[in-house]
Amino acid sequence: MSTGPVDVATAERMAVRLKALADPTRLRLLSHIAAQGCDSVCACDLLEVVDISQPTISHHLKKLVDAGLLVREQRGKWAHYTVVREMFDELRGFLDLA
Amino acid sequence: MSTGPVDVATAERMAVRLKALADPTRLRLLSHIAAQGCDSVCACDLLEVVDISQPTISHHLKKLVDAGLLVREQRGKWAHYTVVREMFDELRGFLDLA
Repeated sequence: MSTGPVDVATAERMAVRLKALADPTRLRLLSHIAAQGCDSVCACDLLEVVDISQPTISHHLKKLVDAGLLVREQRGKWAHYTVVREMFDELRGFLDLA
Repeated sequence: MSTGPVDVATAERMAVRLKALADPTRLRLLSHIAAQGCDSVCACDLLEVVDISQPTISHHLKKLVDAGLLVREQRGKWAHYTVVREMFDELRGFLDLA
């Protein structure tokens, strides 16, 4: 965005990412996972972060995984999630209007 | 987000901003306005940026103004728009997972 008007393909790609982020619950889940740095977070530990049911948490996390913002790894019963930092780096660069 | 899990109020505030941004047409309009730096852009000049009708452009711009991402100033017949850089600075800081 800092280099001028964006093309249609870039705008559509970024809109998908922004839409996945545009939910308060997802932002809270994501910020908790991001706070662990490079370590993954077990879905079981996210139950105490937001006061919603496990299926609803899974639904929100799936949206973030589908948008490429999180990576999901199954370990036995529970899924573990890690932030894909490159996606956020690119998004921040896109939003750099300065 | 870089300083750990966010509180509910911050998550809700950022989600509103992200939702307003999460549309390819709005991103293209916004990137065009942002490319003018501190200068405002006349709505009449945005018709050639995106191939949609003036009422639809106005609808999209209103979403961005309502979210605080643009400032609207009426000058005679046409509205002029300027980017609110502080809003983007704050959003980029929020998305700083590095």
